[in-house]
Amino acid sequence: MLIVQKFGGTSVGDLERIQNVANRVSKTKEAGNDVVVVVSAMSGETNKLVGYAEHFSANPARAEMDMLLSAGERVTASLLSIALQEMGFDAVAMTGRKAGILTDSQHTKARIEDINPTVMQESIKMGKIVVVAGFQGINENGDVTTLGRGGSDLSAVAIAGALKADLCEIYTDVSGIFTTDPRIEPKARKLERISYDEMLELASMGAKVLQNRSVEMAKKLNVNLVTRTSFSDEEGTLITTEENIMEAPLVSGIALDKNQARVSLMGVKDRPGIAADIFNKLADSEVNVDMIIQNKGHDETTNIDFTVPVSDLNDAKRVVDFFVAKGEVKADSYNENICKVSVVGVGMKSHAGVAAKAFSAMAKENININMISTSEIKISMVIDEKYAELAVRSLHDAYELDK
Amino acid sequence: MLIVQKFGGTSVGDLERIQNVANRVSKTKEAGNDVVVVVSAMSGETNKLVGYAEHFSANPARAEMDMLLSAGERVTASLLSIALQEMGFDAVAMTGRKAGILTDSQHTKARIEDINPTVMQESIKMGKIVVVAGFQGINENGDVTTLGRGGSDLSAVAIAGALKADLCEIYTDVSGIFTTDPRIEPKARKLERISYDEMLELASMGAKVLQNRSVEMAKKLNVNLVTRTSFSDEEGTLITTEENIMEAPLVSGIALDKNQARVSLMGVKDRPGIAADIFNKLADSEVNVDMIIQNKGHDETTNIDFTVPVSDLNDAKRVVDFFVAKGEVKADSYNENICKVSVVGVGMKSHAGVAAKAFSAMAKENININMISTSEIKISMVIDEKYAELAVRSLHDAYELDK
Repeated sequence: MLIVQKFGGTSVGDLERIQNVANRVSKTKEAGNDVVVVVSAMSGETNKLVGYAEHFSANPARAEMDMLLSAGERVTASLLSIALQEMGFDAVAMTGRKAGILTDSQHTKARIEDINPTVMQESIKMGKIVVVAGFQGINENGDVTTLGRGGSDLSAVAIAGALKADLCEIYTDVSGIFTTDPRIEPKARKLERISYDEMLELASMGAKVLQNRSVEMAKKLNVNLVTRTSFSDEEGTLITTEENIMEAPLVSGIALDKNQARVSLMGVKDRPGIAADIFNKLADSEVNVDMIIQNKGHDETTNIDFTVPVSDLNDAKRVVDFFVAKGEVKADSYNENICKVSVVGVGMKSHAGVAAKAFSAMAKENININMISTSEIKISMVIDEKYAELAVRSLHDAYELDK
Repeated sequence: MLIVQKFGGTSVGDLERIQNVANRVSKTKEAGNDVVVVVSAMSGETNKLVGYAEHFSANPARAEMDMLLSAGERVTASLLSIALQEMGFDAVAMTGRKAGILTDSQHTKARIEDINPTVMQESIKMGKIVVVAGFQGINENGDVTTLGRGGSDLSAVAIAGALKADLCEIYTDVSGIFTTDPRIEPKARKLERISYDEMLELASMGAKVLQNRSVEMAKKLNVNLVTRTSFSDEEGTLITTEENIMEAPLVSGIALDKNQARVSLMGVKDRPGIAADIFNKLADSEVNVDMIIQNKGHDETTNIDFTVPVSDLNDAKRVVDFFVAKGEVKADSYNENICKVSVVGVGMKSHAGVAAKAFSAMAKENININMISTSEIKISMVIDEKYAELAVRSLHDAYELDK
């Protein structure tokens, strides 16, 4: 098998941990696999460099930031290669450039446009363990770029796709994807497998193991993704196509997002295009709108409710103020004390009654549902924040996710 | 004027010092000059990375070391560029690759083979301050290489040569080149100008401001080199061609090298080629032989004396043992308690009596001279180490170098 293994900052956080990573990589190699390793900077290193830059400027130039930040991954990749060589393996460290990772020119948040895997393939053919500095690539001018948050995961997935690897293992300090947050529900169970789409729903709602960009890319490139911990030999969770999941369970997990605020607009002037105007202006202000509900009001107006991340709330208020000033919105109110619980599962596509079970579970605990939004594989409910954990546990029980 | 300014590790040792460097560069730019800045890694940074590598291996692969070590200069160059931008200057940070520095493939001690200055020139033409990561280049495969000890100085001199810069300023924590070590002779005087050849003699004998590789390259590329301190506005010393030095003084300086040991071979078989055999074998063992003296012995044999750096003494002994075992050398002895004092000056080419004055100065203090070696611009004497400082002061006085 050809396996891409990616180790994040905490997994390579100090020299002993880098040695542990070398040991793990060596086992995979000795089991007869070809291995490509992708590494992040040692934890704390990138923040240190950002702090240095901010000492000089609140808004440092992005090209300079990329030259600065790409240093951290070079260090880890070199050290891991040296450690593997000392253990008797033929290893070679590569920068993003050498690994053929081509991006656009959006410094500090570049997108991977293409991967030229020739150099990596030649090394693999020679039996070498390839160690790639994650998070970085080059643009068409040959300048170094970085991929933004979660960039090393992206590097790993893109490399796995380009090399048609059998597996892309993402090592973190979390042992996999759980039916819900084990800190809330100790009976939460680690999933063996989960589909890309389920993972996307879970990740966007608080299961911060993998960023959506990486899952989306894995889905697009058909990469079998495994998240597992680098601190034990415990098996992780395989994230794959629905077809690879034999018996999809009705529901795979319960997600909780406490980081939401509700915006309520009352007496919105009922003219064509008003909703488009409001949500375009929110998008222009880079406000991330999640759930949206529109109700007919009691006169010639409507009411529009939507949720945004708490961090975007001030920007959202500015946009709303604009429409209030124009007289197109009569009244507005805001509520930060809400949360969103979601039931996720590809199985619910083909089964009726899944939503009803969720509503019953809430009713049994006397939890009032403020907003409901459903998709093919998800039911989301906005409730008072104080019921957050109770709701998660009730839903986990209702769908018997501990079994 | 086009000025290349190079700042070493102590000059960029922390964030405040990097800001000081930015201030100094900005003054040079505001005075109407074009400026290219070459920076080292922050002091301690390279040693830290070497320590990391040595944690994993006593003999880490050199290509990996280059990928590792080149990270330090990237960080400094990025930060300095950010600092200059924040002060309102148009600055751009470049890696060795971007600056067009092409080397051979001897990782960790590569030689600069060529510089393609196009990218730097374009930026200079646009009025930008170019900030280059020193110590690094790329080989013909595009892999990063580093230039070994004193590599950033070399980068600066080579860039100054390629850009035909008017001046290459090397900033260190020393304010220039002195007539002798001021810690030994407080009356030592800073030289305004010195020729490349004199500097080469002084540098190789303990005036560790500039490495010979850099001075040799400056001579070859005809680069006007200035060494000065980054911690004050004090003028430094200009190192230039002899023609640029109007009235060359008889003697420019006194150098002291305590790091020498004397090897004495007695009863060396007087066959043709014996000296060649011995010194070839020493060269093969990478023993750096400095002074050599050969005397006829009292029978059919000769005596050969030579000096080597103390650090090479054990290797030298092994070579000598080989010839003793072969019966071609009868007896050997070693003395580490010696030192070498040298009188250096281009002026002595055209003046008689310079050597005599040195011998008289030694005689006046009853210092016995063990070995003498002279070149066109240098007189070196090996004496007992206990007289080292006395000899330096006597010679400094004899040639009136404090005037």
